[in-house]
Amino acid sequence: MKELKEIKHIHIKNGMKVSELVGQMHDVGFGASKIAEASNIMANMFKDEECKVFLGVAGAMVPGGMKQIIIDMLDKVDVFVTTGATLTHDLIESLGEKHYKYGYENEPNDIKLNEEGLDRMYNVLMQNKVYEELEEFFEENYAQLKDIRSIKEFLWKLGELCPGRGILKKCWEKNIPVFCPGIADSGIGLMMWGREASGKGESEARVFCDLKEIIDVAWTSKKNGVIYVGGGLPKNFIQQALQFSKKGADYGVQITGDRQELGGSSGAPLREGISWGKMAKDAEFVDVYCDATIALPLIFAGVL
Amino acid sequence: MKELKEIKHIHIKNGMKVSELVGQMHDVGFGASKIAEASNIMANMFKDEECKVFLGVAGAMVPGGMKQIIIDMLDKVDVFVTTGATLTHDLIESLGEKHYKYGYENEPNDIKLNEEGLDRMYNVLMQNKVYEELEEFFEENYAQLKDIRSIKEFLWKLGELCPGRGILKKCWEKNIPVFCPGIADSGIGLMMWGREASGKGESEARVFCDLKEIIDVAWTSKKNGVIYVGGGLPKNFIQQALQFSKKGADYGVQITGDRQELGGSSGAPLREGISWGKMAKDAEFVDVYCDATIALPLIFAGVL
Amino acid sequence: MKELKEIKHIHIKNGMKVSELVGQMHDVGFGASKIAEASNIMANMFKDEECKVFLGVAGAMVPGGMKQIIIDMLDKVDVFVTTGATLTHDLIESLGEKHYKYGYENEPNDIKLNEEGLDRMYNVLMQNKVYEELEEFFEENYAQLKDIRSIKEFLWKLGELCPGRGILKKCWEKNIPVFCPGIADSGIGLMMWGREASGKGESEARVFCDLKEIIDVAWTSKKNGVIYVGGGLPKNFIQQALQFSKKGADYGVQITGDRQELGGSSGAPLREGISWGKMAKDAEFVDVYCDATIALPLIFAGVL
Amino acid sequence: MKELKEIKHIHIKNGMKVSELVGQMHDVGFGASKIAEASNIMANMFKDEECKVFLGVAGAMVPGGMKQIIIDMLDKVDVFVTTGATLTHDLIESLGEKHYKYGYENEPNDIKLNEEGLDRMYNVLMQNKVYEELEEFFEENYAQLKDIRSIKEFLWKLGELCPGRGILKKCWEKNIPVFCPGIADSGIGLMMWGREASGKGESEARVFCDLKEIIDVAWTSKKNGVIYVGGGLPKNFIQQALQFSKKGADYGVQITGDRQELGGSSGAPLREGISWGKMAKDAEFVDVYCDATIALPLIFAGVL
Repeated sequence: MKELKEIKHIHIKNGMKVSELVGQMHDVGFGASKIAEASNIMANMFKDEECKVFLGVAGAMVPGGMKQIIIDMLDKVDVFVTTGATLTHDLIESLGEKHYKYGYENEPNDIKLNEEGLDRMYNVLMQNKVYEELEEFFEENYAQLKDIRSIKEFLWKLGELCPGRGILKKCWEKNIPVFCPGIADSGIGLMMWGREASGKGESEARVFCDLKEIIDVAWTSKKNGVIYVGGGLPKNFIQQALQFSKKGADYGVQITGDRQELGGSSGAPLREGISWGKMAKDAEFVDVYCDATIALPLIFAGVL
Repeated sequence: MKELKEIKHIHIKNGMKVSELVGQMHDVGFGASKIAEASNIMANMFKDEECKVFLGVAGAMVPGGMKQIIIDMLDKVDVFVTTGATLTHDLIESLGEKHYKYGYENEPNDIKLNEEGLDRMYNVLMQNKVYEELEEFFEENYAQLKDIRSIKEFLWKLGELCPGRGILKKCWEKNIPVFCPGIADSGIGLMMWGREASGKGESEARVFCDLKEIIDVAWTSKKNGVIYVGGGLPKNFIQQALQFSKKGADYGVQITGDRQELGGSSGAPLREGISWGKMAKDAEFVDVYCDATIALPLIFAGVL
Repeated sequence: MKELKEIKHIHIKNGMKVSELVGQMHDVGFGASKIAEASNIMANMFKDEECKVFLGVAGAMVPGGMKQIIIDMLDKVDVFVTTGATLTHDLIESLGEKHYKYGYENEPNDIKLNEEGLDRMYNVLMQNKVYEELEEFFEENYAQLKDIRSIKEFLWKLGELCPGRGILKKCWEKNIPVFCPGIADSGIGLMMWGREASGKGESEARVFCDLKEIIDVAWTSKKNGVIYVGGGLPKNFIQQALQFSKKGADYGVQITGDRQELGGSSGAPLREGISWGKMAKDAEFVDVYCDATIALPLIFAGVL
Repeated sequence: MKELKEIKHIHIKNGMKVSELVGQMHDVGFGASKIAEASNIMANMFKDEECKVFLGVAGAMVPGGMKQIIIDMLDKVDVFVTTGATLTHDLIESLGEKHYKYGYENEPNDIKLNEEGLDRMYNVLMQNKVYEELEEFFEENYAQLKDIRSIKEFLWKLGELCPGRGILKKCWEKNIPVFCPGIADSGIGLMMWGREASGKGESEARVFCDLKEIIDVAWTSKKNGVIYVGGGLPKNFIQQALQFSKKGADYGVQITGDRQELGGSSGAPLREGISWGKMAKDAEFVDVYCDATIALPLIFAGVL
């Protein structure tokens, strides 16, 4: 049995570094071993100069406190796909607003929160009045936004126009393609509708426009790596682009709280992607079934 | 303690009807009690003539065998929101193709499936060659599709053009508004890109276009009811429209396999929506945490 | 591809029987397909005259309203293993007490419940005063209980002594071996401690005593079938007996809400048992990932 | 709104300590915020000199690589409750055997593993021949074990007799009361049965014996703290002892992957315990819904 690799128990020491902990996780089982594998695979795809990295982010990662990690990951990423909600919460913070903690998620009083103008996401709150800031921002800038035909260009323009630092600003500054096919489903979408509704003219952003660009990246790159924080539309949009790559993704890391048995894309293990040609047959990949606010900091700390 | 309602144990009898079983579920606890509540609330919103019903469907419900139930539910529904994948799988079946069962999901061989041209969704398969059928259909009909500016009108046109029966056909026949803000993220999206890429001209479908219409329904109706099968973009898109309704939805049924503790919209209990104004303070609503292929047939059978 | 089995969509009809619905579930995917398989496999093990059936029940199935189904299943079962809590809640009902529904599980007030003497299990309540009934019952009968050396004989005596119908009574009446290695961890355990503490003498029930009997059944039977409602100690105790069977269980049905990725026995797929010799290599088995209060009634109705 | 606490985004730095990361988790949402709270509460109960700490451990924590952390936690713990499996895996390692990693958990070949004599727990393996070591150990020592009437004393004797270091040895050395009401459900149970079966005389270990001792601790202490790694019998056994404490536990930390909606004790939020008197009305407590192999190292590192 000499080929078998022993489990070595994690030993927590005073003043231990996160990278040491993640290092020790290589030698244990279950979820911890997935954290360590994910960290390795992410490091490998970042180091591989032939590899284009696609990052998909769903879920309330900005309200949850993961914005800075996403911004830092963008330095290593070639294509970014996310939800309209992620970009809206980013824009809101970029306009100077905040998210807040809620301490009563186990006995919530949503009626009272509503009366106080606070919107709840489990144990995180946002003031409903942020929409007024958004209104003002879009009112002021609609002329520069409405004629843009590509969602990516639209988002880059938002990044250029928004006052503060954040995900949108970073994507604009670094020319990172940012795709958001479901952008209508968000506060940003509502703002665009509001301008149309008040007679300021129709937005020309076209729904199928950005497919060309994301598919081109997958098609022309020598290798591809995928990172999915949550599932939903970002994961699926990247997966479908990878069907046009040479052999599917060569590297894959997925963090999800869903279950494969439900059959949906969000909980599907990366392995399923091999059947579709979305993952390469010889790819390095791992599924981490964990709350992303716990898993992502560990994995990224292990990469650094 | 006379106000306390006793638990009465479910008694399975030979030849028992589904509606009887759901009826008995009213008097027990845990998940079963949620099925019964959901059935009641769904019946109430269907019966309430002042109520507009919004149905959101995410997840692989067509591959999973739920298509006919969705078609039958559409008879009671005023607005339908779904994912591009749902409509693509519906269109595929409408073109005469099928989905198939896979019996090895616990020890899957995705490499072999890939070699056999079979795409896997947990224990369901699709032949990869369906994309050829799709190509042909879109090639033939692109001229009628490319200039449509609204996604809803685009989908109705697909419903009109597709040969077989199904969800798209039903929405077209019955004039049920069908919204799919993330349509680019789907086989349908790929087909539209394929035509553009081969020089057939750009699609004019606009991403923010349908917001007006869904918000109008929520805004003008006396009462609203929501049914979420899965979360994702369909749920969120309906929720944001309801922020513009008089007082949020009056009725709500949600079936989800996600968890609220992760903070994402998909697993968020309907109660959270009260804080946002998406649910009315005095609404009847229930969250059913269950595989939708088990819960939905029971709930709908209880409604009939 | 003619060997592939088509997905046929579930069609809900008015007045449809539960057995018809479960029948239709054979031809779909995901969780529903597991319900149908489980129903088939359970029917097969019940019909197979060479097969000894082991039923393990964990979780709050009596408070949840599943008692009658368990009682009815016992007619087909050769060995029953459960938790102390299940037997305590059964005894409580047998003494004339009830469980009740709680309607505020999403915004629970546990402090108020405590003041009102109500113990909560999610959306089910029990009056704390049931312990007084239990005290009285054990005070009265302790002399007949304390010298019994086997837990099984101890539980049969409880079944004989308890006034009402229920699981314990059924096991005693039908001579169904009922094992509960963790009996100390329950209200029954507390009652036994209470008598010892008040000087009524020590119970002689021996902890390792019943292993012989359960292993004997597994060892000597031609075939074995296992049904696990929940995991925990009942599942594990049956599994370890089956390590001594000829080739592991020939039939297996598991209903669980846990996840395999966590590595624990409760969420482990039955397949893992093959490596241990707990499941036969050629066994028919299925894992149903679902709330047992939803899955069990469906599966059992499909068997009838 | 000045009382609202801002979300501050986690910022991963090179060489960052685990304690810094856990510190930053205080200011975010969702699962990460629970890790930080758990770390705080655990530190508080360890520091509080009036507080007796009860640690319950279920799940495959020894195979999963958490043994050393448990051993280190025992320095701060007054009562330890666990499963028979945990103690068996600990004893196995104490006898010089190992656990190993399995790399094919997504396409497992359990038949091959069985043929190779390897027992699988998700992605961890054990050689089946460890049972021979166990046999030998118990054969040699049965005379010293069989007459012990208390499970705790029996386990302390195992700790004394076993050659290597580990959980059992630590409990014996430090006189930490170790309770395991379900001990029959384990390899240790099988070994005891084997000796009885081969005519070496019956074990006198009594099932209800240890209740007195654990209840005495809860009853007489000024304050109590509880830590549940997994649910099952260990959690429930501690909870029922706490019903006899002055006002329920003052501190509580729970790590679980289960769901409250299923109604079982393992997934029940600590809050439910208030209704039963198991948790104090004014207790500090938190539920961490996460894989324990990820959460426990973080929480414990934050305590140091």
